[in-house]
Amino acid sequence: MSKFWSPGVESLTPYVPGEQPRQRMIKLNTNENPYPPSEGVEEVLRHFPCEQLRRYPDPESIALRDMLARTYGVNREQVFVGNGSDEVLAFAFRAFFQRQGEALAIPEHTYSFYPVYCQLYGIELQKLPLNDRWEIALEDFPETGHAGIAFANPNAPTGHAHGRQAIKSLLERQRERVVLVDEAYDGFGGESAVPLIDDHPNLLVTSTFSKSRSLAGMRIGFAIGSRALIEGLERIKDSFNSYPLDPLASAVGIAALEDTRHHEECCRAVMATRERTARELEDMGMEVLPSKANFLFVRPKHLEAASVAASLRTAGILVRHFSKGGLSDWLRISIGSDEEMTALLEALRSLPPSSGA
Amino acid sequence: MSKFWSPGVESLTPYVPGEQPRQRMIKLNTNENPYPPSEGVEEVLRHFPCEQLRRYPDPESIALRDMLARTYGVNREQVFVGNGSDEVLAFAFRAFFQRQGEALAIPEHTYSFYPVYCQLYGIELQKLPLNDRWEIALEDFPETGHAGIAFANPNAPTGHAHGRQAIKSLLERQRERVVLVDEAYDGFGGESAVPLIDDHPNLLVTSTFSKSRSLAGMRIGFAIGSRALIEGLERIKDSFNSYPLDPLASAVGIAALEDTRHHEECCRAVMATRERTARELEDMGMEVLPSKANFLFVRPKHLEAASVAASLRTAGILVRHFSKGGLSDWLRISIGSDEEMTALLEALRSLPPSSGA
Repeated sequence: MSKFWSPGVESLTPYVPGEQPRQRMIKLNTNENPYPPSEGVEEVLRHFPCEQLRRYPDPESIALRDMLARTYGVNREQVFVGNGSDEVLAFAFRAFFQRQGEALAIPEHTYSFYPVYCQLYGIELQKLPLNDRWEIALEDFPETGHAGIAFANPNAPTGHAHGRQAIKSLLERQRERVVLVDEAYDGFGGESAVPLIDDHPNLLVTSTFSKSRSLAGMRIGFAIGSRALIEGLERIKDSFNSYPLDPLASAVGIAALEDTRHHEECCRAVMATRERTARELEDMGMEVLPSKANFLFVRPKHLEAASVAASLRTAGILVRHFSKGGLSDWLRISIGSDEEMTALLEALRSLPPSSGA
Repeated sequence: MSKFWSPGVESLTPYVPGEQPRQRMIKLNTNENPYPPSEGVEEVLRHFPCEQLRRYPDPESIALRDMLARTYGVNREQVFVGNGSDEVLAFAFRAFFQRQGEALAIPEHTYSFYPVYCQLYGIELQKLPLNDRWEIALEDFPETGHAGIAFANPNAPTGHAHGRQAIKSLLERQRERVVLVDEAYDGFGGESAVPLIDDHPNLLVTSTFSKSRSLAGMRIGFAIGSRALIEGLERIKDSFNSYPLDPLASAVGIAALEDTRHHEECCRAVMATRERTARELEDMGMEVLPSKANFLFVRPKHLEAASVAASLRTAGILVRHFSKGGLSDWLRISIGSDEEMTALLEALRSLPPSSGA
């Protein structure tokens, strides 16, 4: 606490990202892709004209937005890019949900950064419980009187995804406020809502290059929506930082989008590993939720999740355990390579049956 | 305007960065460095392990902060880094100046992004006129009842810099609130206030790799101040984006800091070109303010500044003209290479004496 801080800064509870260990470990805790990015990324770095770095980047990131527009079958004016989808989300919360006297409706369990943005901007929150299958209860979202709706689809940390038809039905009941569908985990078997944007000017779809495109390090996020929503995001961005993306990030992003085959192969491999891992975990007596993401949400049943995470850590394997919010019986396990998942399964099999419980 | 925007988004007046032309022009409009970055930057890009990009970066950017700490003779806990100094400033305004009923004091003419942040955060502004030598009147800043003080030193667009002793005297009268000294243009002959941070826990010095280190494209900004101020910035950053800097930016920044000789040579060359250009402009009958930055603030006297800028544009040379706010008689001209400045001077000499006036 400092007397020099603005009022309220002390009471902020910042987001805590998954650990980035300094020593070598099997990292199944932050949903990174086990496969390297497209070889085109290496080409970009090896041949980038460094002299160009003395210049400011294109503040509008037109080349990358055009490539995203081609990839998703939309227009440039329907695409926004930012320094990771966290920044894009931060701008979106400010642009659309800061409405005094109205609460933003989010699921009780979803990306845990949303409540942090709400604190930052003084946005009230209404949290809706998941249904008994750990799915977002889309039918429970309010239709009026709210500041908007935001959720991840596939959802985190559960991995469940609603299909496009379900999102469409939700949108048909939502005309007043923005519906933000965070598709950070798109590519692993879920359906994107992007084709719905033309009929729904209040739909904003956000996504990232961090997961399916193996570029968590490069910090590239984007949003797709109607021109009015993109203009809203641009107004916030241009009041915050004219140039969120450097030219390397833009060029790397374009190279990744061009390599559709690599993207498909990586996604297919992750999904195959996910399904095999899910079966084996179930065979070990664990509860595993069906997942359309690059992670599994797993309940060890006969063991305490926290002590399983601790034992795995000792064995050199990081998974994510959320100690708060009613999720403490569960582990979120990222899908690594086949070898990494085999190591995980072996480590789990070698746990004593009542380990730490 | 859209009904989906949060109240107030419509009335934001975003910052307008200098033009980044698509065709080849002599660019003296955004204060970029005419010299390329250190050769170490090229080394980083050529050898960076691309596989690593699938991982999230270090959220604390410890390697870069350590290198900055060594460079400036401070501790890591006194250093904050962000995605360009615009982001660092945006965080600082939120962390320290958002105080209802108190106004932030800034000079009438300084970096024009400050009023934009104030709009974004609902911060009231008190603008203080420059003195009759176009210098910031440090003695006019209020001592109590204000939300803080922010100014650029060297100042933009004037180029004037106060010495460390003057900043120290200001700080001795300021105990209640944060004093933000924006040293984006450090390195071109001004004195940094960083040595004052130990005695002044309310002093925050911000800076950037965009100017003297020729890395405007790489988006690396930083702040140096007491631990309490750095912690305030971290609380905002961690409520906004866990990973503002990608590992390429960090590695490139470290390489640039290591190459002290290149930095000194570039700065010396820019200062020499600045002084020669200033003399020649004065010889042409123009008023030129003394500058400690990598630009000159120039009044053509016998010509209309706007039409000089337009004529230069036709000749393929971009300079910055501010049409509003009492600066319309002036041009801000970045210091380019010697060849570029010779081309500028020739173009100016070939203007008809009453061009457009």
